[in-house]
Amino acid sequence: VSERVAELIDAARAGSRVALARLITLVESGGDPQREIAAVAYRERAPYVLGITGSPGAGKSTLADKLIAPSFQVGDAGKALTQIAVLAIDPTSPFSGGAILGDRIRMQDHASDDRVFIRSMATRGHLGGLSLAVPDSLRVLATVGFAAVIVETVGVGQMEVEIASTADTIVVVTNPGWGDSMQANKAGLTEIADIFVINKADRAGVRETRRDLEQMLDLGAERPWRPPILDTVATSNTGIDALWVAVNEHREHLESTSELGERRRAHARAQFDRVLSVSSLARTLDIAAGRDYERLLSEFVEQQIDPYSAADALLGQR
Amino acid sequence: VSERVAELIDAARAGSRVALARLITLVESGGDPQREIAAVAYRERAPYVLGITGSPGAGKSTLADKLIAPSFQVGDAGKALTQIAVLAIDPTSPFSGGAILGDRIRMQDHASDDRVFIRSMATRGHLGGLSLAVPDSLRVLATVGFAAVIVETVGVGQMEVEIASTADTIVVVTNPGWGDSMQANKAGLTEIADIFVINKADRAGVRETRRDLEQMLDLGAERPWRPPILDTVATSNTGIDALWVAVNEHREHLESTSELGERRRAHARAQFDRVLSVSSLARTLDIAAGRDYERLLSEFVEQQIDPYSAADALLGQR
Repeated sequence: VSERVAELIDAARAGSRVALARLITLVESGGDPQREIAAVAYRERAPYVLGITGSPGAGKSTLADKLIAPSFQVGDAGKALTQIAVLAIDPTSPFSGGAILGDRIRMQDHASDDRVFIRSMATRGHLGGLSLAVPDSLRVLATVGFAAVIVETVGVGQMEVEIASTADTIVVVTNPGWGDSMQANKAGLTEIADIFVINKADRAGVRETRRDLEQMLDLGAERPWRPPILDTVATSNTGIDALWVAVNEHREHLESTSELGERRRAHARAQFDRVLSVSSLARTLDIAAGRDYERLLSEFVEQQIDPYSAADALLGQR
Repeated sequence: VSERVAELIDAARAGSRVALARLITLVESGGDPQREIAAVAYRERAPYVLGITGSPGAGKSTLADKLIAPSFQVGDAGKALTQIAVLAIDPTSPFSGGAILGDRIRMQDHASDDRVFIRSMATRGHLGGLSLAVPDSLRVLATVGFAAVIVETVGVGQMEVEIASTADTIVVVTNPGWGDSMQANKAGLTEIADIFVINKADRAGVRETRRDLEQMLDLGAERPWRPPILDTVATSNTGIDALWVAVNEHREHLESTSELGERRRAHARAQFDRVLSVSSLARTLDIAAGRDYERLLSEFVEQQIDPYSAADALLGQR
């Protein structure tokens, strides 16, 4: 580990939020510093991760925002949480690299609270992108002393569902009204939900949405934990305490059964496969180093070879 | 090429939609038949692809549905389209494998029209998934005689934006009202749009949405083609002809400049990288064949090694 990275880790452990933010930026950027940080951070156990996902506009950011405060009161039964971090996963252009952080401004309420750390993460250009940078950042947070992290995704694309589904407890946020629960189901959220929240529950249609969700749960496979369905109005702080109680109950369920270990091994396997995929491609491209790669790409463009045969040619005989 | 695949291709070329559907299923399923089909299909030039993307609920399916009919009238200036295909990309659970095809039922209007072929594609379990199956399917359609394909995505996740962005002409669908254009911009759609559509333009807020989009375009980089902004009410067929005119203008722009060739080479490069990534991982896992893989995964789970060092150990010294 280089002196620079070691210093940043020491500073972040001592409470420097600037150093912590810098570590996460390095992790996002890839390269040698990212690997040095990983070598330290993965000695730490992953933090407890609460994932929040659901349709755009369902109120996920507001909910995450409101969940921060009660966490200090409710926390975990035995061990009260002293610090909480929020990673907000913003999808962004594959071309620009920058995230629009407009709706993060709300969270500035907590900017002066040193028990809270909030960070937006966006897609970067490097191989692997968010699906590697998010678990890396979670370990960095654990290394620095965060026992719990809220991971909030902005959209419901496959990558976001993938990221949310690596949480220990997954909260799926819907809204009242016909069709919203259907959209959630289409995006595969019914199957990954540990807790359903009907946010904006002061609007009409709560009963119908609840009935739809119950029916979807009835149709699904029998599971040892049946996801509860909670009503919230995040903007007025309604139902947030009850949501933390449900989160803690789910956490206790995970810890009292073999499920936590099984989930974490499954997530580790998926992450390891992604790392292997990125690493083996990086090696391949290193070896190919331009010459054969460009020739085979041209043959593919000119319809002389299909891309699978071209890949075989580049990687050595099938 | 096996006799079975050769027969399916012959039958599909002769007009059998059952054979065509079977070919796409084989392509989605991966394995040897997929590779045999690719070896034939990639000798064909890719079809002209019209991508339709935008927020869930913006009316993309309805728009795609309405675009089918006028394509026979308007088509391309010189060469009238005789056949058109629609690939509807449905995000679905990473666990179930099945797509919910509810909103495809509308398209059954065209089910008896043998100039139209409509197909939903969902995430499958195999490596690479949709990001490989979609371009493969486009070539299969070209092989069978479809000169133009509409690719419609249901959501706006990273993978869907990635798939939509491989189209020749990209239509981004928004709705009137504050915030919708902002969501589109957040998802990176402003930068990939060739044409903006404000669908449901019989609702209030069209002027504001148009102004927001114009401002975003003004802020973006200068481009030789400035995306037009069109109003449609897809449900009542309003504005569909004008949309086809804009699509054809963009197509002519692409063909009269070097842009079509550049785009297609860039898309081919991205696709080749994905194929290489999947192929090199498949080889790695073949070689690792259980033993070292499971040992290193366990070391990772037990915090004895970070996943990057574990990947290096599996792939050979860094």
